Amino acid sequence: MSAEDHAGAVLVREVGPRDGLQMAHGIMPTDLKIRWIRALAEAGLRSIEVGSFVPPKLIPQMADTGEVVAAVRDLPGLAVTALVPNLKGAQRAYRAGAARIVVPVSVSESHSRANTNKGTDEAVAELGRIAAWARAEAPGLHVEAGCATAFGCSIEGAVSEARVVRVAESLVAAGAASLVLADTVGYGNPAQVRRLVAAVRSAVGDRLEALHLHDTMGLGLANAYAGLESGIRQFDASLAGLGGCPYAPGASGNIVTEDLVFMLESAGFSTGVDLNRLLAARGFLAGGLPDEPLHGGVSRAGLPKTYATPHCPY
Amino acid sequence: MSAEDHAGAVLVREVGPRDGLQMAHGIMPTDLKIRWIRALAEAGLRSIEVGSFVPPKLIPQMADTGEVVAAVRDLPGLAVTALVPNLKGAQRAYRAGAARIVVPVSVSESHSRANTNKGTDEAVAELGRIAAWARAEAPGLHVEAGCATAFGCSIEGAVSEARVVRVAESLVAAGAASLVLADTVGYGNPAQVRRLVAAVRSAVGDRLEALHLHDTMGLGLANAYAGLESGIRQFDASLAGLGGCPYAPGASGNIVTEDLVFMLESAGFSTGVDLNRLLAARGFLAGGLPDEPLHGGVSRAGLPKTYATPHCPY
Repeated sequence: MSAEDHAGAVLVREVGPRDGLQMAHGIMPTDLKIRWIRALAEAGLRSIEVGSFVPPKLIPQMADTGEVVAAVRDLPGLAVTALVPNLKGAQRAYRAGAARIVVPVSVSESHSRANTNKGTDEAVAELGRIAAWARAEAPGLHVEAGCATAFGCSIEGAVSEARVVRVAESLVAAGAASLVLADTVGYGNPAQVRRLVAAVRSAVGDRLEALHLHDTMGLGLANAYAGLESGIRQFDASLAGLGGCPYAPGASGNIVTEDLVFMLESAGFSTGVDLNRLLAARGFLAGGLPDEPLHGGVSRAGLPKTYATPHCPY
Repeated sequence: MSAEDHAGAVLVREVGPRDGLQMAHGIMPTDLKIRWIRALAEAGLRSIEVGSFVPPKLIPQMADTGEVVAAVRDLPGLAVTALVPNLKGAQRAYRAGAARIVVPVSVSESHSRANTNKGTDEAVAELGRIAAWARAEAPGLHVEAGCATAFGCSIEGAVSEARVVRVAESLVAAGAASLVLADTVGYGNPAQVRRLVAAVRSAVGDRLEALHLHDTMGLGLANAYAGLESGIRQFDASLAGLGGCPYAPGASGNIVTEDLVFMLESAGFSTGVDLNRLLAARGFLAGGLPDEPLHGGVSRAGLPKTYATPHCPY
């Protein structure tokens, strides 16, 4: 990437209300969750994964996702996204008013079976049913596939890049409008990001849209930068790195939204996010989940003198 | 950087005993410091900055550097480095047995004056006196210049890249055998690393040898990866990110050695470091500086299944 390529827009999708809260020990009250998501949108985030439509017995933190989607679906300029594991969840998300759904499919067969009782092929087939239903009955709903454990698996260890490419191809063939490669357990490294993005791009082109990275080993932003160098212009991130990794107690969660925005804006990219407002939105977490560790370099150190706050679009 | 370029050796220089301990609240006892440095060398680190020859009144944590250098100078395969602010310090370092000295020169005029009462040009001239003395009277001593605040300054804010290049050129003209660009306060971003390394390399070639990065904003490893992409194959780092930033209370210090080694080895580079032994060396910090925050993703999460421990050369 030459100096001139360090420009243009990058879309940061906040996934804290889903990936962060589902790992939290406490349950954030619905009204606080909605106020938090509004504050995130007011800070300039244009894409937020606000929850998941999964059985409340499995993830009680997500029981109110329908209510949350309905409350924020009309925020101006915001693409409201929800994670759904199956057709039933997709239908609930659409009825609630989600603009976009993410269907996770684990590339690792063992991880897929351990988490969903379905193998990878069955999960791809479910994505196919969702995409077919959306084409017929949910006009405008964007169906995205999340390739989980694409960079390694806590059960199997290494996941072959050929397998990631094969699963990505089958997801596109099954009707996914776009793909996100997810480093679910945070095993990825920058060289791997470059190789895997190149391999998947050469198979499915720019259907590969985004990266979903965890900061388990401290490499999250290095991996994001490798993604940028590979041409990726959309990243998932979580305010304060909220969340964690079920396989690594104490590990941080997704890459920290504030630090990602700082890196992108400092490097010349445009995110549309007002970093001071974003930092202020951490207050909802400190208040609503007092026992949850909050991560982040920028919040700890404060914005440096060299950082010019970009204009907030809201 | 293509996939094939993710190979070859990268030198990791541990600077915790200098940059880390000088910021610590407590003073590590000399014998513990020596045992710590030995453990670091036994983990495979071939270059360690063990202290600085500065007035003990200013930095009491470094009062025993002569004793420390003498105790570890004969460890097999280890390049013992010390930081020196002036000719007198250089002479003390040489007498104690240091193989290499680092002379810091702040590119930011204000930072230089605030820290040393000397402007940048005067600091370059002092480097010239040290290099001339070394040529005449200290055969084999490697004189390295550290370009401090090269990525930004807590007093001036932005530091112009043209000025960094000019200072780098003058340091080489004054006799520096090699240069390290230092992000002293941690304001740098990956795009800036790529630009600045390219600019300094085109002025002084591979006299620009290394990067010294801080993780103040959480961007440390992303910046290191940008350095790798720019052809840099030597990095300073500090075990557990020990240290901090005097201008950002609570901020972490240098990039975390363990996480850097993990990133490099995972990405296909060879460091010669046994990561399990390196992680074990954190015990000296936990024991000797119990009030100091210890950072690091790998230590928190544990090594993943995908990590193959390389052979330790010791």
